[in-house]
Amino acid sequence: MTRSQLIEQIRTKKNFLCVGLDPDIEKMPKHILNDEDDPIYEFNKKIIDATAPHCVAFKPNTAFYEAYGLNGIESLEHTLKYIKQNYPDHFLIADAKRGDIGNTSTMYAKAFFQRLNCDAITVAPYMGSDSVIPFLKYDGKWAIVLGLTSNEGSADFQQKKIDGRELYLNVIETSSKWGTKENMMFVVGATKAQMLADIRKIIPEHFLLVPGVGAQGGSLADVCKHGLTKDIGLLVNSSRGIIYASNGKDFAEKAAEEAMKMANEMKQFI
Amino acid sequence: MTRSQLIEQIRTKKNFLCVGLDPDIEKMPKHILNDEDDPIYEFNKKIIDATAPHCVAFKPNTAFYEAYGLNGIESLEHTLKYIKQNYPDHFLIADAKRGDIGNTSTMYAKAFFQRLNCDAITVAPYMGSDSVIPFLKYDGKWAIVLGLTSNEGSADFQQKKIDGRELYLNVIETSSKWGTKENMMFVVGATKAQMLADIRKIIPEHFLLVPGVGAQGGSLADVCKHGLTKDIGLLVNSSRGIIYASNGKDFAEKAAEEAMKMANEMKQFI
Repeated sequence: MTRSQLIEQIRTKKNFLCVGLDPDIEKMPKHILNDEDDPIYEFNKKIIDATAPHCVAFKPNTAFYEAYGLNGIESLEHTLKYIKQNYPDHFLIADAKRGDIGNTSTMYAKAFFQRLNCDAITVAPYMGSDSVIPFLKYDGKWAIVLGLTSNEGSADFQQKKIDGRELYLNVIETSSKWGTKENMMFVVGATKAQMLADIRKIIPEHFLLVPGVGAQGGSLADVCKHGLTKDIGLLVNSSRGIIYASNGKDFAEKAAEEAMKMANEMKQFI
Repeated sequence: MTRSQLIEQIRTKKNFLCVGLDPDIEKMPKHILNDEDDPIYEFNKKIIDATAPHCVAFKPNTAFYEAYGLNGIESLEHTLKYIKQNYPDHFLIADAKRGDIGNTSTMYAKAFFQRLNCDAITVAPYMGSDSVIPFLKYDGKWAIVLGLTSNEGSADFQQKKIDGRELYLNVIETSSKWGTKENMMFVVGATKAQMLADIRKIIPEHFLLVPGVGAQGGSLADVCKHGLTKDIGLLVNSSRGIIYASNGKDFAEKAAEEAMKMANEMKQFI
């Protein structure tokens, strides 16, 4: 999906919500586990159908599928295919946080873009240019580089200073030159909304993928205040807050309600 | 596998060679591709059988399996099982370079340690403590944290200075405190052997996983000069240099020859 197509989706639907598909059988409704052959896929389908009208993107985190082995990977592949077939206008992100030396990143790019037909993949920056560039060679596909993450551990290295400036700002500035605003985005944790202003000075136009609104405690108003651009420039993700809104028979309905609530909050900023 | 078991293997076999299993169908012998239902697994089995007498560890890189989708993941699972069943004394590393927020890293740890029964997994440090600690909670299992990688891109961030000292030294010092020499190792690229001396000042006893000897141009003598400890403390990996030594019918034999050559070189340092 191209940048202009993504922006059009956001303007049409009047939200920039990304729903994170992180299935955890310990949190999923019991009746799904008992009833279905592939409970993860069944859970995801119902969540996707319920929330699709209220979001512009889906983001499965690969860890939650790999944890269940081959069956889990199969659930992931089915989920990705289901989204592409039924919701081709939704932006599809593989939250995989991959990154390796050049020839190996090339294999990952092939896996996620060619085989799995995702629009984007999250990428870890530690190994530098040749670990990211292979993800930038596909038209209409995106590398979403970890800039500032929303977890506690982001203080360990990301916020340490290099030449008087935090590592995450160095990472964003340096890596933004490897691609363009048409094929790169950055992960920026919402719990540090005040840091968005500094980031926007470096990349005024790139899209940011913002996790941590909801379960991780960030505020949508803060994120918008510092992160919004004339083309919106934001995808705000919520996973647990939406998909585990209920673990009863009404889980999909409650997920839709939570997604709608967030989408409505976003409307005022479009 | 515990540290003392690993050291014993090295002393018994008189080498510290790790064979990287990075199957690429474009480089594999044609007759394997034509003959077999699961060419990756067949290729791996022959490489494993041929090189096992000359190495102490195997390291499949997950990217090379994910690139082939479900079939590739199946080949990976079969390969891991084959090694565990037939070569239980070999140290088994999943070169996956994972790392995510705490609850997600927990899922990855479950995938690689519980389901796939690997001894170790490589981990990216950018997201900090809570992205690494979930990998340290299994007895006899290891997190191998990226310190200094052997690729060109390692200059982009790893070698930048924080408070007058390179990021990779900060990463190694800080993260080494999250675990012990019994459950953590570090990836240190062999193309920068002179930097090993600085690293050894910080972690005099931890094992280092050293890629980049061979195809990537590092020298074994340099690595040993600066990296060896009284307990050896090194696993030196070679992938392409061994597994693609020939792409004819004699590929396994040639791989064995290359592995033996490296193992023999190592003997003098034990």
